[in-house]
Amino acid sequence: MTADEQSSADAAPLRAAIVGSGAWGTTFGAVLADAGCQATVLSRDPAVVHQIAVQHRNDAYLPGIDLPLGVTATLDPVEALADARIVAVAVPSQVARATLEPLRDLLAPDAVVVSLMKGVELSTDSRMSEVVAEALGLPPERVAVVSGPNLAREIARRQPTATVVASVSDETARLVARACASAYFRPYTNPDVVGVELCGAVKNVIALAVGIAQGRGLGYNTMATVITRGLVEISRLGMALGADAETFAGLAGMGDLMATCASPDSRNHTLGGHVGRGMGLDEAVAATGGTAEAVKSCRPVLDLANRLGIEMPITEAVVRVLYEGLPVDQLAPLLLSRPRKSELA
Amino acid sequence: MTADEQSSADAAPLRAAIVGSGAWGTTFGAVLADAGCQATVLSRDPAVVHQIAVQHRNDAYLPGIDLPLGVTATLDPVEALADARIVAVAVPSQVARATLEPLRDLLAPDAVVVSLMKGVELSTDSRMSEVVAEALGLPPERVAVVSGPNLAREIARRQPTATVVASVSDETARLVARACASAYFRPYTNPDVVGVELCGAVKNVIALAVGIAQGRGLGYNTMATVITRGLVEISRLGMALGADAETFAGLAGMGDLMATCASPDSRNHTLGGHVGRGMGLDEAVAATGGTAEAVKSCRPVLDLANRLGIEMPITEAVVRVLYEGLPVDQLAPLLLSRPRKSELA
Repeated sequence: MTADEQSSADAAPLRAAIVGSGAWGTTFGAVLADAGCQATVLSRDPAVVHQIAVQHRNDAYLPGIDLPLGVTATLDPVEALADARIVAVAVPSQVARATLEPLRDLLAPDAVVVSLMKGVELSTDSRMSEVVAEALGLPPERVAVVSGPNLAREIARRQPTATVVASVSDETARLVARACASAYFRPYTNPDVVGVELCGAVKNVIALAVGIAQGRGLGYNTMATVITRGLVEISRLGMALGADAETFAGLAGMGDLMATCASPDSRNHTLGGHVGRGMGLDEAVAATGGTAEAVKSCRPVLDLANRLGIEMPITEAVVRVLYEGLPVDQLAPLLLSRPRKSELA
Repeated sequence: MTADEQSSADAAPLRAAIVGSGAWGTTFGAVLADAGCQATVLSRDPAVVHQIAVQHRNDAYLPGIDLPLGVTATLDPVEALADARIVAVAVPSQVARATLEPLRDLLAPDAVVVSLMKGVELSTDSRMSEVVAEALGLPPERVAVVSGPNLAREIARRQPTATVVASVSDETARLVARACASAYFRPYTNPDVVGVELCGAVKNVIALAVGIAQGRGLGYNTMATVITRGLVEISRLGMALGADAETFAGLAGMGDLMATCASPDSRNHTLGGHVGRGMGLDEAVAATGGTAEAVKSCRPVLDLANRLGIEMPITEAVVRVLYEGLPVDQLAPLLLSRPRKSELA
């Protein structure tokens, strides 16, 4: 038993709150409860609160799954946040700031806040941990990010996975890792918050490109090539922004991207498949049942790369196919016919 | 047009020979021909030679695929190797030395030799490029290795992919890259021969572990976790042997492993699936229709790691399941319950 585990075993159960009662928020509440925390889900929906608190289920988001008894729910922010040492946030990225600002004065003085959200706030280009810190008036040392190959429905069935807990404070990262570690959920700490959040924000563009290739009927070599070279271009962008290259080869980069591209549930991957089979963008959005994030984010990402002088040929190809009328059957040759060069360049 | 492409366009077609007429050897011959080389497959099987030379097909290994007219075949080593500037070798790893030694005096004086083979020579623990150099009496500067997400049957259908051409000589790597580059096959050069060959030799152990997990019914998170953490442990071993960490995150590492784990054709992955569904090793070997390479290589890899003081928990778990009676349902907890630590450690 390590020193960490010893102190965890000795302590009283941690109180944890989860802001947001969707699939990932509810699942992370279950993960915390299975790891020994008292977890309370804060929701605005009375029916969801009732079902979690009384039946220990959340059928709207996790049909057929029984939640652990250690998860409860409430409509009352004061009740949820009182004495909560860990506050995890899983609401849609674009409403995070407005959701969190009214909670600012309710946080316990020693609370650390965990962002479970991906993407960037479009109005400010801020990463989600920056939005969390600003909205709640916290220094970055009290904020962490959890990201990895973490499809919620598989974790809710207690299928084993690992994840990354990133924080500029090692103490905060270790506190959160201790709070969520169990036989099926293994957290690794990582100080590279920028890299972990960038992976989460940009991977959907690569997932969309993989979807296009698969929609064209291309096989596993093409998929693996697009994912591998896609991570190389995300890494280049990340390193220009101060991230660590190893993060991109790790669980929040390669791991998350692989799980996303393998899962039939990814909207970005699904939308790419429709485009690959010949639909225009509007038709593909309609067939997917909503806009996939990469449709909005691919152009800002490419603009950022251009400003920094970074080549992102896969992202560029996605932009050209979605917005500039490039026929999808020109996508692969476009990617592959560039001058030969060193893999490590 | 780059300087490389200019010189390539000006030159007469390169003569290339391929030693071995299996799926990958024949496919690489087609890749070379599509890139503008005159490619001759050297085979010991008169029926295969006849079919390639006359019908431009190799139905035993590539059923339903028409080969380019630039590929021919011969039974005669003298004819195959005369003036061949590129000699690619794709025979079973354990017979490579015996196959190549009689060809030593037939090589053109400026020939470079490309290993398409994976694994190590079990009697000597040599990497395949070392076997090639020794058997043919060549300095390492005249040897290259090609490896990546390269499932032969997809490439033979001209589906786009990328690959790594590794050589200690940049000139040799660039010559081979020029010779095989086409609209559907994109080579990247890499000086890290040790890393590229180690990826090819050890990835099958990880593919077998992924198979076990999937055989147990575990999903995409688990798959992505085992692949990601598996690459971390291969990287640790590789760096101790002088390889470059980036190689493992590249096409010959992550790329090849992803394609292998996605493909239904991988014996190692298939055998792992049988073990995951509860078969013993002998029964799983019988059901797979032959021994998968990782069954032989997992123990020598673990022994090497132990001698070097490197932790390889996934490889160790595979050895324990296959040879020490560890029940497969203990595999996941074994991997996940180790002390929490830093991802970048």
